[in-house]
Amino acid sequence: MLHKNRLYTPGPTQLLPSAQFAMAAATMHHRTADFRDLYVRTLADLKSFIGTQNDVILMACSGSGAMEASVSNLTSPGDKVLVLTAGKFGERWSSLAKAYGVKTEVVSAPYGETWTLDAVKEKLDGVSVVYMQGTETSTGVRHDVEGVAKLLKGTDTLLVVDAITGLGTTHFDVDGWGVDVIIGGSQKAVMIPPGLAFLSVSERAWKKMDATKNPRFYFDLRKERKSAAKGESAYTPATSLIAGLGAALDFIRGMGNGNLSDGRHALVENAETAAAMTRAAAEALGLTMFAKHSPAAAVSAINAPAGVDSGAIVKGFRNQFGAVVANGQGDEMKGKIFRVAHLGYYDYLDTIAIVGALEHVLASISKPAHVEFGPGLRAAQFVYAQRATFAAATV
Amino acid sequence: MLHKNRLYTPGPTQLLPSAQFAMAAATMHHRTADFRDLYVRTLADLKSFIGTQNDVILMACSGSGAMEASVSNLTSPGDKVLVLTAGKFGERWSSLAKAYGVKTEVVSAPYGETWTLDAVKEKLDGVSVVYMQGTETSTGVRHDVEGVAKLLKGTDTLLVVDAITGLGTTHFDVDGWGVDVIIGGSQKAVMIPPGLAFLSVSERAWKKMDATKNPRFYFDLRKERKSAAKGESAYTPATSLIAGLGAALDFIRGMGNGNLSDGRHALVENAETAAAMTRAAAEALGLTMFAKHSPAAAVSAINAPAGVDSGAIVKGFRNQFGAVVANGQGDEMKGKIFRVAHLGYYDYLDTIAIVGALEHVLASISKPAHVEFGPGLRAAQFVYAQRATFAAATV
Repeated sequence: MLHKNRLYTPGPTQLLPSAQFAMAAATMHHRTADFRDLYVRTLADLKSFIGTQNDVILMACSGSGAMEASVSNLTSPGDKVLVLTAGKFGERWSSLAKAYGVKTEVVSAPYGETWTLDAVKEKLDGVSVVYMQGTETSTGVRHDVEGVAKLLKGTDTLLVVDAITGLGTTHFDVDGWGVDVIIGGSQKAVMIPPGLAFLSVSERAWKKMDATKNPRFYFDLRKERKSAAKGESAYTPATSLIAGLGAALDFIRGMGNGNLSDGRHALVENAETAAAMTRAAAEALGLTMFAKHSPAAAVSAINAPAGVDSGAIVKGFRNQFGAVVANGQGDEMKGKIFRVAHLGYYDYLDTIAIVGALEHVLASISKPAHVEFGPGLRAAQFVYAQRATFAAATV
Repeated sequence: MLHKNRLYTPGPTQLLPSAQFAMAAATMHHRTADFRDLYVRTLADLKSFIGTQNDVILMACSGSGAMEASVSNLTSPGDKVLVLTAGKFGERWSSLAKAYGVKTEVVSAPYGETWTLDAVKEKLDGVSVVYMQGTETSTGVRHDVEGVAKLLKGTDTLLVVDAITGLGTTHFDVDGWGVDVIIGGSQKAVMIPPGLAFLSVSERAWKKMDATKNPRFYFDLRKERKSAAKGESAYTPATSLIAGLGAALDFIRGMGNGNLSDGRHALVENAETAAAMTRAAAEALGLTMFAKHSPAAAVSAINAPAGVDSGAIVKGFRNQFGAVVANGQGDEMKGKIFRVAHLGYYDYLDTIAIVGALEHVLASISKPAHVEFGPGLRAAQFVYAQRATFAAATV
C-alpha cells in the first residue's frame, strides 16, 4: 500500500494544514502594521493558551534557546540553583547552569521515575531558582509542578518550568500555582514546525533580571519585552512561523468553541485520550510503559519486548507504514524504548491507526512469527468509548 | 487597481515560490534519514553559495544570533576586539562585545560613509578579532572586506564579517582573502522567510574556541559542528525553513546552469543590475543616494527630497501600490531616507515597476503637484540595456 509520511514523534509533530497554508502565504515585513497586528494578537493568544496574565515572549529559536534565556536572564555567576532531573531534558538544565557559572544543586531520579517532594524540600536552602520539566519528553513521565510550586510559595525562590511538551498536554494553573517562567515550543502541541519558542515571565522574574549579571544579547528577555510593547520583536522574527502559530491558535480557539482557554482544555483532554488509548493497547499486547508513575499525555514511552531492540520497532513503523516514532534518547535509552507522541494534531483515526500498525510491527519482529491481531485495537477502542461516554455524561 | 503585497525591504525579501511550496510540504522529523539527507545537502550547498571550503553551521535564529555566536565563541572577558562601524549593524557589534565583557576598540565613520583602511591599521595592536559588515544595511554602503582582510594577512587576528545582506549581493573570496567567519541569514538573498542564520568558520577560528571562556550553550558552534558531522543539528532545527532553503539553493544552482558557484555570481550580478537601475532612476528624478561612496547592491538608501519626510514616501508606496519599502533605521535616519532592496528574488519587471511607482509617489507628495512621468523609468531602461549588451558581449 501507499506510505504516507506521518509523524508520531514528540516534536516535530503532525502539522495543522491551515497553519501550513498560512505559513506558505505569509509575505510580510516585520516592521509593518500588518505584522504588528499579527504579533500582538499572537502574543495575546499565547497568554490564553498558556493560561496566564504574565507577559509572553516569543523568540526565533528552538526550545533550548528559551531554556538558555531562563538561565542567562535569571542568574549571576556563583548563584545557587536547584535542578530537578529524571531524564535528558532535566540534564540540559544542569548543562546550562554549568555553562553560565551557576552552582547547581540537583535532585534526580532514575529514568522512568520522578523525584519526591521531600527530596526537593531538603535542597531548597539558599536556592534562587528551581528548574524543572513539566513532562520529561525522554522518558514520558509527568513531574509534579503543582507540588513543587507549593513548596516555594511565600519564598523568594523562582520556579522555571520547561513545559515544551507539557503545554497543551497537561493542566497548569500558571498564575494560581505561581510558576514564574513556563516555556513552550512551536513544534509541539501548537502543531507547527520547529523554529519558535515562547515563555511567560512573572513580575518578580522581570524584577530579578535587573540585578542578574550573566551575559545575554539575542536572548535578552527585557529587550524583547520592550519591543513587544510596541508590537514588535527585538530581532527579525520568524514571520512565516508566526503566521502559522496565529492560525494554530485560531484552530485551538475553535476547539473551545470560540474560547481559547476552553480550547486549551480540549487539547489536553484530546492528548489524554490518545495517550490512554495507546497505553491500554500496549498493555493489551503485553508491553509495559517505561514511565513507572504518572505517564505523560504528551508521549508514551513503551519498553521494547525482552530481547528486541526498539530500533527494529522504529524501523518497522517507518518501512512498513511510513510512520515515524521516536527511539529512546541518549545511549541509556536508545534501543530500549520507543516513543509515540500524542501532543497536538492527533485524532481518533490517527491513534487507532498507529495501534493497528503496532500490532503488525510486533508480529513482524517476533520469532517465531506470533500474530495475534486485534487485542491492542480493542483495548484502545474500549478506552475511547469509555472516555467519550464520560465526556458526554459530563457535558 | 488591485494591490498586491510586495516586499522591497532589505529582509524579509520577496519569497521564492518553489521554496514556499517546499516549506508548506515539509513534514519530517529531524532525527531521520530523510532529514539528514536534506541537512547534509543543504550545508554542502551553503558552502558553495558562500564560496568556501570551511565548515558551515546553520542555526534556528535571526542573523543577530549568529553575530552573538561569533562573539561568545571567539572571545573571553577582557579580550580586546576591534569593531568597524558606520551604521546600525556596526553598532550591534559593539553592543554584543559589551554584553560579553570584551574591551572594544572602534573605528567609525559617519552614517552613509565608510572608514579608511589607514584608520583600521592604526587600531589593530593587540586586537584578537575584527568585527565588521560586508554591507551596512542601514545606510546602503558597502565596506571593504578585502582591504581589511589584507591588513590582517599573516597576523593572528581573526576577521568576522556580517554579510547578512552581503552574501548574494557582493563578491567575497572568503578563503582567498582569509575571512574567518562570514554570516548570512535566510530572509535575505536566499529568498526565504526569516528564522535561519548560517556562518562559515575557518580552522583557526575553530582552534580559537578551545581557549575562549565566554558562556555559550544554544549558540555553541563546536557542538553544532560535531552534530553536523553526523548530519544533524545540536538542537531541534527549523525543519520547514531548511526545506525552503534547500529549494532556494536549487534555484540559485539553476541560475548558474547547474553550478551553484556560477549561480551565486549570477545572483550578485542580478542585484548589481537592479541596484544600478534604481540608482540611475533616482538620480534622473533629482534624488540623491545616502551612500556617499560604494553603494551596496543589496539595498539602495535614497535621500527624501528636501522638506519631505521619507515616511510619506514609504506610506505612498504602501497605500498607493501595496509595495513595502523601508524607512531609515533608528532615530537619526528615520524620516530622512527610504530604502529599496535588490537582494534575492527581483527581476527586471520588479525593478522597473518600483521605479514607475516611485514616480507616482513623488508626484503625489510634491506641492504644488509636479508630475513628470518617465525620466526615472528611461534611465533605468538605459542601464538595463547597457548591462545586457555588455553581458551579451562578454559571454
